[in-house]
Amino acid sequence: MNDNHSIINKGLRGVTVASTKISDVDGQAGKLIYRGYLVQDLAERTSFEEIAHLLLFEKLPDEKELENFTARLKEARDIPREIIEALKTRPADSLPMDILQASIPMIANHDPDIGNYSLEACQDRAVSLIAKFPGIIAAWERIRSGKNIVPPNVELGHAANFLYMLKGETPDDDAEHFFNVGLVLHAEHSFNASTFAAREVASTRAHMYAAVTAGVGSLSGELHGGANVRVMEMLKRIGSVDKVEDYINRELDAGRVIFGLGHAVYKTDDPRALILAPMAEIMCKKIGESHWYDISKRLEEKTKAAFKQRKRMDIFLNVDFFSASLYYAMGIPTDLFTPVFAISRIAGWTAHVLEEQFAGAAAKPALYRPESDYIGDYCGPEECSFTPMDER
Amino acid sequence: MNDNHSIINKGLRGVTVASTKISDVDGQAGKLIYRGYLVQDLAERTSFEEIAHLLLFEKLPDEKELENFTARLKEARDIPREIIEALKTRPADSLPMDILQASIPMIANHDPDIGNYSLEACQDRAVSLIAKFPGIIAAWERIRSGKNIVPPNVELGHAANFLYMLKGETPDDDAEHFFNVGLVLHAEHSFNASTFAAREVASTRAHMYAAVTAGVGSLSGELHGGANVRVMEMLKRIGSVDKVEDYINRELDAGRVIFGLGHAVYKTDDPRALILAPMAEIMCKKIGESHWYDISKRLEEKTKAAFKQRKRMDIFLNVDFFSASLYYAMGIPTDLFTPVFAISRIAGWTAHVLEEQFAGAAAKPALYRPESDYIGDYCGPEECSFTPMDER
Repeated sequence: MNDNHSIINKGLRGVTVASTKISDVDGQAGKLIYRGYLVQDLAERTSFEEIAHLLLFEKLPDEKELENFTARLKEARDIPREIIEALKTRPADSLPMDILQASIPMIANHDPDIGNYSLEACQDRAVSLIAKFPGIIAAWERIRSGKNIVPPNVELGHAANFLYMLKGETPDDDAEHFFNVGLVLHAEHSFNASTFAAREVASTRAHMYAAVTAGVGSLSGELHGGANVRVMEMLKRIGSVDKVEDYINRELDAGRVIFGLGHAVYKTDDPRALILAPMAEIMCKKIGESHWYDISKRLEEKTKAAFKQRKRMDIFLNVDFFSASLYYAMGIPTDLFTPVFAISRIAGWTAHVLEEQFAGAAAKPALYRPESDYIGDYCGPEECSFTPMDER
Repeated sequence: MNDNHSIINKGLRGVTVASTKISDVDGQAGKLIYRGYLVQDLAERTSFEEIAHLLLFEKLPDEKELENFTARLKEARDIPREIIEALKTRPADSLPMDILQASIPMIANHDPDIGNYSLEACQDRAVSLIAKFPGIIAAWERIRSGKNIVPPNVELGHAANFLYMLKGETPDDDAEHFFNVGLVLHAEHSFNASTFAAREVASTRAHMYAAVTAGVGSLSGELHGGANVRVMEMLKRIGSVDKVEDYINRELDAGRVIFGLGHAVYKTDDPRALILAPMAEIMCKKIGESHWYDISKRLEEKTKAAFKQRKRMDIFLNVDFFSASLYYAMGIPTDLFTPVFAISRIAGWTAHVLEEQFAGAAAKPALYRPESDYIGDYCGPEECSFTPMDER
């Protein structure tokens, strides 16, 4: 038995595991900071490429740096043809997050320098993964739909190129802009479960691919990256604005949650949700399905009121609440919402893996290795005495 | 900044994250306990199948239970042919741990009941993964060597069947017995880094495959599962018994470590190493290469003496020290040592994922989500003010 009982079985809440220079979340004030910058300041004024550069290299790039970095990303976009062949062996109903997860160690298989753990080699891996995630997801969507794979378009930036490879047509300016904002907003969020999983794996000196593969696995959980999928399913179940209040009452009466509200960290509306909301409104209108936005808006208002009335407490929007209808209106299949999250968060994961591999390894004695409290008193306080098979 | 500074950047050492009924490690006394039983009592008297049953179902099986469980494992051994096709797309020089990691989400692709999170469905997944790991590794070894894949042999138990599929011939009694003991001894070790990674991913409600994939990634790190590979490389570098002392002096003078000695947890010789040592001796002799064992033995003795003399401290054997020469003498390629570790540890991982999914979810509020301490003072204590591209 151990004497730090106060934190056992609390999911490490309130336990500070490491120092980081990458990002900060101030849940009380509703602030999310990427390497010194408020995400609200970045969201509509930077490209995902700039953010990836900021996260990996600790600075917003100047024009020349951005040009070089963008060229590096474009060069690294191609998915090795053998990986495409492997994807073609996969059943069409495979979960896309499982497809993505399997693809990452396959990317490792094609790294000619896999044993090289220098900073440059690890940064190259980060660039390669950031560049390739969109191509993996788009290729899988095309393969499972029986369509031809669309090769990347060197004329297009990261956001537009993904939508182009996914659908085979260049997105309009709104779609490109909004998708870019979505990528910027989801790129990094401190020691969330997937980032912690990636750092934990990197701490054993496993390579970056192995670490990121763990991050993808963690993100696939419905308590983490799966949340906006559940928001969209909820919006579909509700179906129309007039059914919102009945739905809320039924769910809360049954002790269930309303998806997209409530967060472990934020004690105010998630700043990212407030940025996404008007974009969701515009996109839903554009496809002639404003009701998804309208349902969301009514749902927000009435859920907040219900919480005040029933529980005398406030509940706040999280980032998933409006990303659901936004992505849906962009024509992204619902089961690709979490992979799209990964297309963005890979920037944060790789930055954290680099920090763990270089700064972290210097600061920390070794790998993450917590203690556990053994409560298996199968034979009382003594050890069990072994019984051979014929006496059991 | 956070007030629990005493544990920041300590790799969670001394932090008790969860309670568990699965195993206990008493590093001071040199005791490893699987669900109440001392591993020393189990090692030479049980099959890996019995241990997997003990870990998953909380009891050593009686004859009937073992018969049923063994039949279940045998039925689940076959690797879907589409996964074999995918493996055939992989470059021959791929790291075997990356091959294994990519294979697990592919196994998920073939789970017809992937959305079912019932206890039975999750236990079925555990059985499937335990049953299939040997076949994945053996198939990959055959594919990369240009040999025909050997289908599983229903007449053989888990240990013998792996060696059979790997080499195409039935192992002799010693090899079968020793390999079984190796599997029993590596099956479980509490909240080590890979098990913690698997539990962390499972805590987001990601499925068991995603969780185990993270465990494999963590195990691939040289600080964790890669250790016996480095022991074997070291034995080869030393080459003969008369060079041991020079080697030790050179390494210690240069501030480097001697692989296979020292452990974060044990303050005595690892009980598992003491069980493996005589087996390594017999196998090395059998293949006419006793020098691997002799080098190991001298290395143990002289390293312990050197630590006493130079540092006035004791250093102890860990499990990797003799598993290296044992596996080598069995003809297992060095780069498969860590996958072989995984073939065993999958029993522990799946038991922990089940505990996290069922007992853990009940005891714990939600997913593992630690805090971090933000030290990114890029613009001093204030937030950075955003500068548009043309002003950077």
